[in-house]
Amino acid sequence: MIVMLKKGYDEEQFQDLVAWLKAKDIRIHFSQGVEHTILGLVGDTTVIDPSLIQALDIVEDVRRIQEPYKKANRKFHEEDSMVDVKGLKIGGENFQLIAGPCSIESEDQILKIARLVMEAGATILRGGAFKPRTSPYDFQGLKEEGLRLMLKAKEETGLPIVTEIMDASHIMMFEHVDMIQVGARNMQNFELLKTLGRVDKPVLLKRGLANTIQELLMSAEYIMNEGNENIVLCERGIRTFETATRNTLDISAVPVLKSLTHLPVIVDPSHGTGSAHLVPPMAMAATIAGADGLLIEVHNDPAHALCDGPQSLTPEVFQSLAKRINEIKGFAFRRGDKL
Amino acid sequence: MIVMLKKGYDEEQFQDLVAWLKAKDIRIHFSQGVEHTILGLVGDTTVIDPSLIQALDIVEDVRRIQEPYKKANRKFHEEDSMVDVKGLKIGGENFQLIAGPCSIESEDQILKIARLVMEAGATILRGGAFKPRTSPYDFQGLKEEGLRLMLKAKEETGLPIVTEIMDASHIMMFEHVDMIQVGARNMQNFELLKTLGRVDKPVLLKRGLANTIQELLMSAEYIMNEGNENIVLCERGIRTFETATRNTLDISAVPVLKSLTHLPVIVDPSHGTGSAHLVPPMAMAATIAGADGLLIEVHNDPAHALCDGPQSLTPEVFQSLAKRINEIKGFAFRRGDKL
Amino acid sequence: MIVMLKKGYDEEQFQDLVAWLKAKDIRIHFSQGVEHTILGLVGDTTVIDPSLIQALDIVEDVRRIQEPYKKANRKFHEEDSMVDVKGLKIGGENFQLIAGPCSIESEDQILKIARLVMEAGATILRGGAFKPRTSPYDFQGLKEEGLRLMLKAKEETGLPIVTEIMDASHIMMFEHVDMIQVGARNMQNFELLKTLGRVDKPVLLKRGLANTIQELLMSAEYIMNEGNENIVLCERGIRTFETATRNTLDISAVPVLKSLTHLPVIVDPSHGTGSAHLVPPMAMAATIAGADGLLIEVHNDPAHALCDGPQSLTPEVFQSLAKRINEIKGFAFRRGDKL
Amino acid sequence: MIVMLKKGYDEEQFQDLVAWLKAKDIRIHFSQGVEHTILGLVGDTTVIDPSLIQALDIVEDVRRIQEPYKKANRKFHEEDSMVDVKGLKIGGENFQLIAGPCSIESEDQILKIARLVMEAGATILRGGAFKPRTSPYDFQGLKEEGLRLMLKAKEETGLPIVTEIMDASHIMMFEHVDMIQVGARNMQNFELLKTLGRVDKPVLLKRGLANTIQELLMSAEYIMNEGNENIVLCERGIRTFETATRNTLDISAVPVLKSLTHLPVIVDPSHGTGSAHLVPPMAMAATIAGADGLLIEVHNDPAHALCDGPQSLTPEVFQSLAKRINEIKGFAFRRGDKL
Repeated sequence: MIVMLKKGYDEEQFQDLVAWLKAKDIRIHFSQGVEHTILGLVGDTTVIDPSLIQALDIVEDVRRIQEPYKKANRKFHEEDSMVDVKGLKIGGENFQLIAGPCSIESEDQILKIARLVMEAGATILRGGAFKPRTSPYDFQGLKEEGLRLMLKAKEETGLPIVTEIMDASHIMMFEHVDMIQVGARNMQNFELLKTLGRVDKPVLLKRGLANTIQELLMSAEYIMNEGNENIVLCERGIRTFETATRNTLDISAVPVLKSLTHLPVIVDPSHGTGSAHLVPPMAMAATIAGADGLLIEVHNDPAHALCDGPQSLTPEVFQSLAKRINEIKGFAFRRGDKL
Repeated sequence: MIVMLKKGYDEEQFQDLVAWLKAKDIRIHFSQGVEHTILGLVGDTTVIDPSLIQALDIVEDVRRIQEPYKKANRKFHEEDSMVDVKGLKIGGENFQLIAGPCSIESEDQILKIARLVMEAGATILRGGAFKPRTSPYDFQGLKEEGLRLMLKAKEETGLPIVTEIMDASHIMMFEHVDMIQVGARNMQNFELLKTLGRVDKPVLLKRGLANTIQELLMSAEYIMNEGNENIVLCERGIRTFETATRNTLDISAVPVLKSLTHLPVIVDPSHGTGSAHLVPPMAMAATIAGADGLLIEVHNDPAHALCDGPQSLTPEVFQSLAKRINEIKGFAFRRGDKL
Repeated sequence: MIVMLKKGYDEEQFQDLVAWLKAKDIRIHFSQGVEHTILGLVGDTTVIDPSLIQALDIVEDVRRIQEPYKKANRKFHEEDSMVDVKGLKIGGENFQLIAGPCSIESEDQILKIARLVMEAGATILRGGAFKPRTSPYDFQGLKEEGLRLMLKAKEETGLPIVTEIMDASHIMMFEHVDMIQVGARNMQNFELLKTLGRVDKPVLLKRGLANTIQELLMSAEYIMNEGNENIVLCERGIRTFETATRNTLDISAVPVLKSLTHLPVIVDPSHGTGSAHLVPPMAMAATIAGADGLLIEVHNDPAHALCDGPQSLTPEVFQSLAKRINEIKGFAFRRGDKL
Repeated sequence: MIVMLKKGYDEEQFQDLVAWLKAKDIRIHFSQGVEHTILGLVGDTTVIDPSLIQALDIVEDVRRIQEPYKKANRKFHEEDSMVDVKGLKIGGENFQLIAGPCSIESEDQILKIARLVMEAGATILRGGAFKPRTSPYDFQGLKEEGLRLMLKAKEETGLPIVTEIMDASHIMMFEHVDMIQVGARNMQNFELLKTLGRVDKPVLLKRGLANTIQELLMSAEYIMNEGNENIVLCERGIRTFETATRNTLDISAVPVLKSLTHLPVIVDPSHGTGSAHLVPPMAMAATIAGADGLLIEVHNDPAHALCDGPQSLTPEVFQSLAKRINEIKGFAFRRGDKL
């Protein structure tokens, strides 16, 4: 962390700051210029809240040079982490294809789609029981009944399941779920993150619509800081001025995240684009850029999906796409590549 | 709602759609063009999830012309709503100045600031007990102890209090709080919104960093739909590409909201700018543009605030600002003005 | 400027960097930490292109602490600049109301509006002869004929005129124009900026739709660097995710610019909102926040304006607004205010 | 185009509108609802400026359903266009790799890089002679001398060349250039676009930092409308709130553009990310998503590049990347693919 002091700063306040930093085991490098005096802080600066220093009268500016996350930071954990979802690994060289409907609508629907995506190559089943919807008048999911149907689909197909939690108080209902998803709107629901940090289950953490990559890593850090290090990050599109797509899928987040963290990174091209016809090219782009998996909406009857219909693939298209993904996976960019 | 059908659409699917709409009491106006066939849907279209229609094979595009919110909509409630906070009214011609520290730090601090802001002209006291922070390593608030100190400050000064809730399960602790704040990061925490909809207390609902004005109104609708119509909306800055300010304070949201909804609208220039020196001009701008109140951070020792220090005013500056706000309030733009 | 070197940097490359910097009269403060070595560069760092240093193998990061603009920087020119438009001053305590139609449509139209806005209180006339339009099929302005009509309106009313230039090669046609406007889309048309820097006329420089405040100042610096220091900056809305307004008018740009530069700052609430009903509250907000003037579209028959109709005021509304602006001007926030 | 009239609209104004539309050969479908009256306009609505209709008192809203571009529209030109650059084709199934330095610095530099990129697999040489820089104090390019050196490199290697134009008045200097680039900041420099529309040379049109896909197509339409239909579109990153990358490279723009237009689409991962280590994965992602080519910065000594150094590849990395691109090209997503 670098602290720039104002010209003609008060010496007494300066000595207070020095004492406070030393008490936190921070060493200080002092560089006196004509226009500015600069302090270089050395030590574990993650424990320092920069806004506290910024607030001092004598301080002109504070800038971090060290990332404010530790447990998620690749600098302190060089090898790729692998997250185990009921025996299946995500990360390292392990790629998983997660597919299923946006919402669980009925037993018949979820069982049918589960079988179809399994045959087509999916290795994990997704499906929404609790649905965050912008409007209170839109379909909110089958809730507990939806979870029950997901478990049934898991039993029938053997596929591990992932589904979204919307409130910390629901955690008991997720006992038999294999991976718990935190949706984009809850990426900074810190109470939920802390609750998941105390659970012994993989967490699929989606990037918020307007959250930076660093904020995503800070949210992972919240979970890890409570003890749960089984986190899979998910890029799912960010909010920009462009309206041709529902969100702008930030594929560059994959290599950026891969360089900053050891956690696995997957991509959701369905929410990331909002249009079924854009899912295949973007799924392929994410794969080749080095993603550790994909999260794809599939519906046996997209025209009747109770939510997010326009972005769901038919099982036929999903099958072709899965085949294509398989063909290109071996060519994917890897962090160690001499490029 | 307007539905554009694809050229050469399937007649059977079309009849299914017509039947489904009619079952929902929607009347259909049919307009046949050469390139496009257009259906105008008339009736209560808030009950229709446009993505369901969009998902149909025969549909090219769906557009709402009616707003998807009802209870918050000024079209169905022409007069300004007034929200009563322990006898003080917000809305209509009633303007309230809400002030206090970002975080409650100690009994001494909150009592001292409470008295100072009251003397300076504040009518409601704010202070954070539960603090949403991007980093798990930053100060998270005094929590229950903080609420206890707020109640003490209320008792001593007689000022009503407003403080932030971070999780639905905490609701019991807020029994004696006069107005409950939903922070920007929780604007789409739908479980929390529903919980607050079943409480008989005013809610201060902040706009999310990347949420549209319509989404803010939909979140208000979630609360109102459960029965609680005492909602004050708060503009607090949105996330843009500009980095000179922490957020871009969208003052135009005030007149836009005033035309769309009957709910009161206040502005938080402290979070909206992130810099103490920008708070006075932006507080004045919000007032003159027609806001029903301001939410301002004040700290008796900004240099030692445990969070958000750089944006807090000293009590002296707050006092001068309160005086200035009082002078200009009478000139503020009002919806009925012949301008 | 601060340069952070990589751990274990190459000594020879380091000596090359030091020599290169010294040749540019830059002094170097050296601060050796355990994790990082930091160089503080002291002197006129505006002459250093940071990307050159960033590109070096031995460099981890480069950050400016000094603003990259000199002539526009308030640090080197403490008092407000005043720009003289044919005897009228903008800046300091001088406020000007600039009004007129979006496009000049006919002699009758421009003369009629010119008289109406003058009576209503406008002090400078605006009107577009060359119109930048997104579509080649939309009205492109009357061009030279439009300029001729503007000059006629100037002659008849005595109002100084401001109008937009779209290409450097048109400069000869603007000989009798009193202030030349650079539109938002041309804010980084550097050839145009340089041409205007060699002209002895005030320039009204609009902020680009997606340009930061610093980039706006760098564009002013382009003009000033060629010799013309008569620049008025104009905030006119930036592009964000919000769609309820055509742009998001960044009122906070006024106090931010006022602190960074000595140049006058005005606001265009017409383009900044895109809706006539939002112009009065936003014009008032800009004024109270300390703007040195307003740029407002007025049309005697808004329903038939050839472009940008929805955001034009009628002369009646403009007159009421001008009166209101006059009433509140005296209360406006000023940089020296003890708030 | 759909026009929604206000409730209780004035009949006379309505008849005026009808007459005006009929004079433009537009037919009108009339749909009378209880809340709204809707007009469906049928015919060539590109000639109608929607803001003119929006400005009418009787109109509530106007929405386009037909795209406002014709010549660039795939609806009227189903097959892919191919652009010929001195015998090399871009588009259809033809992929070109364009590479070279950001700026031309010296004869030695450009000749060396030209040979290196040709050997590595580049088919077209890029290099900047006129450089748009945010700061007037940064390197502005070698200008005419730079063009001369580019032509020399073309002569020596036989590679066609592409270089950026910054002002319409420079067009004579580009006589021997094979493809003229319009930079992101000039995407809406309409005078420049019109000038290029009257030239018989391919144009490489880059998307502006804050421009929508539709605006990019409208800018192409400006050029095409003057007669020049040889346009290659280029996605190069858009401006968002994320700061981990210099821009957010919008890979989804590739399939979106491919569905909307017949023009070829290439991607610039160098400017799109701003970091050399992100160029390979993003170049691969763009290729697999169906781009018709890549524009990549290569420098034989990135540490001394006079501009944009941090995003340039070394020739060695470029060579490996070119090989990788070749391997995956055959798997790329194509519009006709049954996915």
